[in-house]
Amino acid sequence: MEHLKEKMLEKGIVFEGNILTIRYDRVTLPDGAVRTREFVEHPGAAAIVPLTAQGEVILVRQWRYPIGQVAIEIPAGKLDLDEDPLECAKRELEEETGFAARRWQHMLSFYTSPGFSDEELHVYLAQDLKVSNARPDDDEFVEPLVVPLAAALEMIATGEIVDAKSIIGLYHAARMFQADKER
Amino acid sequence: MEHLKEKMLEKGIVFEGNILTIRYDRVTLPDGAVRTREFVEHPGAAAIVPLTAQGEVILVRQWRYPIGQVAIEIPAGKLDLDEDPLECAKRELEEETGFAARRWQHMLSFYTSPGFSDEELHVYLAQDLKVSNARPDDDEFVEPLVVPLAAALEMIATGEIVDAKSIIGLYHAARMFQADKER
Repeated sequence: MEHLKEKMLEKGIVFEGNILTIRYDRVTLPDGAVRTREFVEHPGAAAIVPLTAQGEVILVRQWRYPIGQVAIEIPAGKLDLDEDPLECAKRELEEETGFAARRWQHMLSFYTSPGFSDEELHVYLAQDLKVSNARPDDDEFVEPLVVPLAAALEMIATGEIVDAKSIIGLYHAARMFQADKER
Repeated sequence: MEHLKEKMLEKGIVFEGNILTIRYDRVTLPDGAVRTREFVEHPGAAAIVPLTAQGEVILVRQWRYPIGQVAIEIPAGKLDLDEDPLECAKRELEEETGFAARRWQHMLSFYTSPGFSDEELHVYLAQDLKVSNARPDDDEFVEPLVVPLAAALEMIATGEIVDAKSIIGLYHAARMFQADKER
């Protein structure tokens, strides 16, 4: 695939925020032409499909400022520096839902928008849930919502769930459990 | 859901590139605390699951500079200013694959990463394909790849397809066509 490769001529950093770094690099295309490539450096994130013994998933509602609406999502959070994604997933599940899980399984990892961001997202299935003592971050306003997996899938069809990681996590879990048979 | 709402105190723009605008706003949280919210303004995009009469999907390979690798994806592209997503989808299908479609169907729309970006992605199913005369953009290096839908789903399982819009488009199509029965 070397014939498709774009090579960096000059690295540019135009903004460094608390979370995001904005790169603006000059690159050489396969035909030798020079272009700029603007993209977001992101620390990466972990997300969790928490599944109860009754086949329900624990979702969270929270305000998503960039899209100006409350989103219904699977629990998730950004990786701390050099953090193992599974450790991040365990921490975020407890902070956002008040549950811990005894059984963890990596489902898949993906890039949310590889055209302009390097954000990689790691999705885990969490089962055998128990109540934990963890508290949410002080500045995090998150409300849990427990629904059967089949109902969560229906919320994708109706447009109530419009978040990429949640759609992927729920569809992937549905394929694992063939939830359609239960609908 | 008003009790979860974050309100803008001050709008900040820290970078305006060719594609991305970086916002750095001061906002008020539900408890009155003040925080910053950094996020990416993106024009939005359209993506296509092009399905042949034989049940194959047309994928594309291209270099994704932010993640430093060739990605295998469904065809897609950014919206031009005020462009209708369906028109964008028709244009991108022709430019990236050399095929046009006689039958179009909106499958779903979603946000790629609502924590730090407002990018909305509209996914269409394209059927009844025919060869078109369109050419790729001069600076776009894209190679098509035609595989059965079941094989594309397997490429998600093996980690060969790691792009959110492609995973969502293919999983959604699989649910529509219950492709598993054919595996």
